[in-house]
Amino acid sequence: MATTEQPKTRDLQELAKRHLWMHFSRMGAYDAGAEIPIIVKGDGCYVWDEHGNRYFDGLSALFCVNIGHGRHDVAQAGADQARELGFFTTWSYAHPRAIELAARLADLAPGDLNRVFFTSGGGESVESAIKLVRQYHKLTGNPTKTKIIARETAYHGTTLGALTATGITGLRQPFEPFTPGGCHVPNTNLYRLAPGYGVENLAEAIAKRIDFEGADTVAAVILEPVQNAGGCFTPPEGYFQRVREICDERDVLLISDEVICAFGRLGEWFGAQRYGYQPDIITTAKGLTSSYAPMGAVLASDRLMEPFLEGTNSFAHGFTWGGHPMCAAVAMANLDVFEQEGILENVREHEGEFRAMLESLRDIPIVGDVRGAGYFQAIELVKDRETKASFSRDEAESLLRGFLSGELFRRGLICRADDRGDPVIQLSPPLISGPEHFAEIESILRPVLEEASTRL
Amino acid sequence: MATTEQPKTRDLQELAKRHLWMHFSRMGAYDAGAEIPIIVKGDGCYVWDEHGNRYFDGLSALFCVNIGHGRHDVAQAGADQARELGFFTTWSYAHPRAIELAARLADLAPGDLNRVFFTSGGGESVESAIKLVRQYHKLTGNPTKTKIIARETAYHGTTLGALTATGITGLRQPFEPFTPGGCHVPNTNLYRLAPGYGVENLAEAIAKRIDFEGADTVAAVILEPVQNAGGCFTPPEGYFQRVREICDERDVLLISDEVICAFGRLGEWFGAQRYGYQPDIITTAKGLTSSYAPMGAVLASDRLMEPFLEGTNSFAHGFTWGGHPMCAAVAMANLDVFEQEGILENVREHEGEFRAMLESLRDIPIVGDVRGAGYFQAIELVKDRETKASFSRDEAESLLRGFLSGELFRRGLICRADDRGDPVIQLSPPLISGPEHFAEIESILRPVLEEASTRL
Repeated sequence: MATTEQPKTRDLQELAKRHLWMHFSRMGAYDAGAEIPIIVKGDGCYVWDEHGNRYFDGLSALFCVNIGHGRHDVAQAGADQARELGFFTTWSYAHPRAIELAARLADLAPGDLNRVFFTSGGGESVESAIKLVRQYHKLTGNPTKTKIIARETAYHGTTLGALTATGITGLRQPFEPFTPGGCHVPNTNLYRLAPGYGVENLAEAIAKRIDFEGADTVAAVILEPVQNAGGCFTPPEGYFQRVREICDERDVLLISDEVICAFGRLGEWFGAQRYGYQPDIITTAKGLTSSYAPMGAVLASDRLMEPFLEGTNSFAHGFTWGGHPMCAAVAMANLDVFEQEGILENVREHEGEFRAMLESLRDIPIVGDVRGAGYFQAIELVKDRETKASFSRDEAESLLRGFLSGELFRRGLICRADDRGDPVIQLSPPLISGPEHFAEIESILRPVLEEASTRL
Repeated sequence: MATTEQPKTRDLQELAKRHLWMHFSRMGAYDAGAEIPIIVKGDGCYVWDEHGNRYFDGLSALFCVNIGHGRHDVAQAGADQARELGFFTTWSYAHPRAIELAARLADLAPGDLNRVFFTSGGGESVESAIKLVRQYHKLTGNPTKTKIIARETAYHGTTLGALTATGITGLRQPFEPFTPGGCHVPNTNLYRLAPGYGVENLAEAIAKRIDFEGADTVAAVILEPVQNAGGCFTPPEGYFQRVREICDERDVLLISDEVICAFGRLGEWFGAQRYGYQPDIITTAKGLTSSYAPMGAVLASDRLMEPFLEGTNSFAHGFTWGGHPMCAAVAMANLDVFEQEGILENVREHEGEFRAMLESLRDIPIVGDVRGAGYFQAIELVKDRETKASFSRDEAESLLRGFLSGELFRRGLICRADDRGDPVIQLSPPLISGPEHFAEIESILRPVLEEASTRL
């Protein structure tokens, strides 16, 4: 057991190593003596660690602090809500903040996505969407339509239902057996096109898989507007329009998983708006509150809700804290900041410069590809630019974990050096950042990537 | 699409019906014109609706507002935290509030449950525990140990992994197929003992099922200290001690699901302490923050973490908002209230009077059983006390939804009229309530139950 005394700063390392099971972390390294980075302060685009070192948060924490750090006015809106009503459920009750937020999201969303089911995070949103499409098909006379088509390397969450959509072997294998029905097709990695596919026919992989499984067994297709894992795969022109047709022809629903891509990440309220397609469901979280409180949402079309309005039918699903009034108040304040401070406009104005800065790094031998959209970009690292040869597992481990992650952090840049697909550096800065920040990112990224190149 | 104008009070009904997909709710009734109860204010043991009507919150919202409503000081601790650090992840980083809260929970928990993995709610906690035991067994050379033994009618959450533990047909069937491996055994309903079982051998149902499945295929047993769904089933004397032996003999882990039963609901920090058993894992949420912010936790023993500390191993799992600093600050403030205002002591002092009030209702013909522990009690309703004859599906529908729920609410009492098992009324008042509140509950409950009796 631990001491109950208020831990002093110098004890935080020890207490963290003893008691805090960090997420997706190799705890053995800390157990062996490595220092845990303890972040103590955030303001704007920067965070500070316990030693007073400042870092540019090039990942918006985890694609989520969209309006930047230090907006205690937004957090205060939550505390103010608690002066009226700190909490009540949406299980056969409602309360004003959840109602107002639902109406506001319906207004911002594309088309008739008028029905809002609240959750406490992205994974819960994806779980809810998978459950929703399954029950929808059962209620409408298609009980065998249960499978979910997703894409290779895509991340859709870690709960055992969401994992069936997630297409990353290492995140699935330790937890087998999990929810049946996940079927994976090639993603839109345009740098390394799947064999037999070109930019013009990538969507056909979805049609082919639905037809192979049998359309009567397929409930939905779930896709991110820009796929995060693997490194910001954007859709080729016309991809989503064709996916929509494929779904319509087969009575398969289209879920746009916008846990990352909504709320300005791509310069629009929703990613579907950037690419001009109409999903049946949008799943979201992260930017909804800019992470000032945990909240997610499922936005569903009027058509989706129809069978649930008949007789005593109900969506037999819920979470205690869905629509939490404090979190809804924070979300409302966050959306106010978006509107009053021109957050979407800032992304639209500066995304070209952000991308240009990253493109300028292409002279470094290790930089194989630069891709993404809005403030959501990735650099793919390669051994040989001409052949696009990538790294072995051990080489990637040594390059990313052994050098890049630590060195970029040491020099003051938080970003993601990721090897869930081919090795990439991902950048997803706060949506309030601009050219001076891009210059700062470059000033750290260039020398470190140059050094990595010489180490090969 | 909705209007963006600030909705006026008189529009809230309309907006809610149009946009808010309420949880576990028959939305068709509202679509057809019924009014949605809109809760606008909370203070102490009471909440108020939009018309100014006051209700005694006999359910603590949903077994979760443990310290009562209106504690804006607790919510303010969250907003104050945001002046330093509004959000950062625990994905390979840490921050002071998550560290301090982890250490504090380890200190409060029984035995060596020293490792704390944070989530944003109870469902995520159960998902994380199921994933944890599966990966633990794979890392320790028992890859086939994947099944989860749970109890009939038990509720462990609604995500597709947690659902495999949940033992309520109606919550599972619409979403099939889901995570394999859930095996259900008789619960501790002492009023209606499972055939072949007595109070002395109920735990043997678990041994029998593990042996039937083959211990090499079973990862864990998950049990609530007092089972919620079905109506507050308490364990008979020695039950958990025997379950612990059964698990140890078969290398099966014991998960104590304390989403409801922790943080004072049974008069102790954790339910396992009330019944004197040592689980390998505790899953919790709700009372951790008294719902002033969404947060859950998995508390695991040192032994459970050992294989995850070796080499490059890691628990390949996480949630963006796990350990959220604002939520952790709220949890710390909530635990301060527990300690400074004697919340546990209040429950211990008054639970006997609470129970005595409920027992006094046994003269009403419809009252078949009174059971529970602490501030977590249920009344089972029967057609005939002598034969314990229960109601048909239609009768239960008519009694609970057609009369009791609405009438109790109309008279100012929020409680749960539930038919996930046999029909029960559940009461789970804020832990600050006392004899004067019990008298108020009785003054509403008695006449309504008496009227229900005459309606039979």
